[in-house]
Amino acid sequence: MTLEPNDRLILITNDDGLYASGLKTLIEVMEEFGKIVLVSTPESMSGMSMALTVKTPLRVKLLEETERRRVFTCNGTPTDIVKLAVNQLLERMPDWVVSGINHGANASVSVLYSGTMAAAIEGCLYGINSVGFSLNDFSRSADFSVCKKFIRLVMQKLGTERLPDGICLNVNIPSVPEKEIKGIKICRQAKGNWREEFEKRKDPMGRTYYWLTGMFQNHEPEADDTDEWALANGFVSVVPVSVDMTAHWYTDKLKERFCI
Amino acid sequence: MTLEPNDRLILITNDDGLYASGLKTLIEVMEEFGKIVLVSTPESMSGMSMALTVKTPLRVKLLEETERRRVFTCNGTPTDIVKLAVNQLLERMPDWVVSGINHGANASVSVLYSGTMAAAIEGCLYGINSVGFSLNDFSRSADFSVCKKFIRLVMQKLGTERLPDGICLNVNIPSVPEKEIKGIKICRQAKGNWREEFEKRKDPMGRTYYWLTGMFQNHEPEADDTDEWALANGFVSVVPVSVDMTAHWYTDKLKERFCI
Repeated sequence: MTLEPNDRLILITNDDGLYASGLKTLIEVMEEFGKIVLVSTPESMSGMSMALTVKTPLRVKLLEETERRRVFTCNGTPTDIVKLAVNQLLERMPDWVVSGINHGANASVSVLYSGTMAAAIEGCLYGINSVGFSLNDFSRSADFSVCKKFIRLVMQKLGTERLPDGICLNVNIPSVPEKEIKGIKICRQAKGNWREEFEKRKDPMGRTYYWLTGMFQNHEPEADDTDEWALANGFVSVVPVSVDMTAHWYTDKLKERFCI
Repeated sequence: MTLEPNDRLILITNDDGLYASGLKTLIEVMEEFGKIVLVSTPESMSGMSMALTVKTPLRVKLLEETERRRVFTCNGTPTDIVKLAVNQLLERMPDWVVSGINHGANASVSVLYSGTMAAAIEGCLYGINSVGFSLNDFSRSADFSVCKKFIRLVMQKLGTERLPDGICLNVNIPSVPEKEIKGIKICRQAKGNWREEFEKRKDPMGRTYYWLTGMFQNHEPEADDTDEWALANGFVSVVPVSVDMTAHWYTDKLKERFCI
């Protein structure tokens, strides 16, 4: 694959695996913008957060190589994949790291657990403009075509001018017909958490086991500046996500509490 | 295990496994403060970040039960373990979730990858005062005794008055003799990232594989208010970590960039 100076180099990954419909849609849009290098796991890696593979080695397989597209599989997590691609597979730093389209929203605290957003955060740690896209629909038959227009719009607005250091974008798209989407809204992460998170069962030997499950609880459903509100009200939410997790506003108060 | 009204209930976990020296030291200190419920994996779960186990069920085994201590193993990640303990194993919400002591520092961006800090962040999402402790020493022979005094001090200062919603503490302890430690310093997360992250090898069949490795690069070694600086200069660093990853300072600027 040769690179033209004005051609964007785009690293694409996801956490739903190589054969996910959301990934297919993302590739279709990204091919309009430049040359793509796609690296994904054969199987889904949902809920992997920024997990790293430290106990087993990673292997990579080149599946396809054309002038405008290279496709690899890798047995790592989304975070591993971005690290490996940047360090070993790409000829130069990509202009964008784009992740998704996730099957299901990654709004509110789901950003903390999301493999889709982990890839974007990792890209951002390398100083690359990085975005994670998610569609608010977990079903297998989810229609990702609604996402295309908004992915195109977000990437055009983002461009190649660098975001500030340590910031990437978390984009969630409501699962409604395109004409019902009211536009893009810049938001903050809603306060919330997950509740009643396990289903307890007995196996055929009578031993207890637990399945992770649960319901998301929005702690501020009335606030109209959150990603959860945007999704519930027909907007595409865009949250600038910071890799700096310091609660800066609280450091002075913590000094008082610690009498320092 | 019966609970006296004035006795603290403390959930302890880690990401280095049930037999880690750092965990042993943490238990010794925490037993001074109340009744403990310890839940850990048999094997280490380093670098698991906030990964969730969604494809396999979780199993729990009670190993020990006395008046002041219950010990379980669980096949989940640190995040799973906190969720499962809070939902299924504990009679009531614990007063503290305490995680560690990690074998190796979790300063700067390592907070994003750390299983130790993931447990603290998960506790915090349940509204529990939560702290992750790490010793800046990866070696097997690390001497954790230096940590005791400072863990005691941090937990006394923290007390049971709730931290603000969505904040937990990331505590890193330098690996030097106790008398050389200059005190506790409230810090922010240093800017940095990992570089040269893979070692490429050939297996006996001639096929390529990669081991995750790398070196941390501090982007602001001169700044004296970061956790990295504190550790390098003989202080225990305490960073208030926020579960809200929104880059709030950038939302208005992003609106301008998106012409919204």
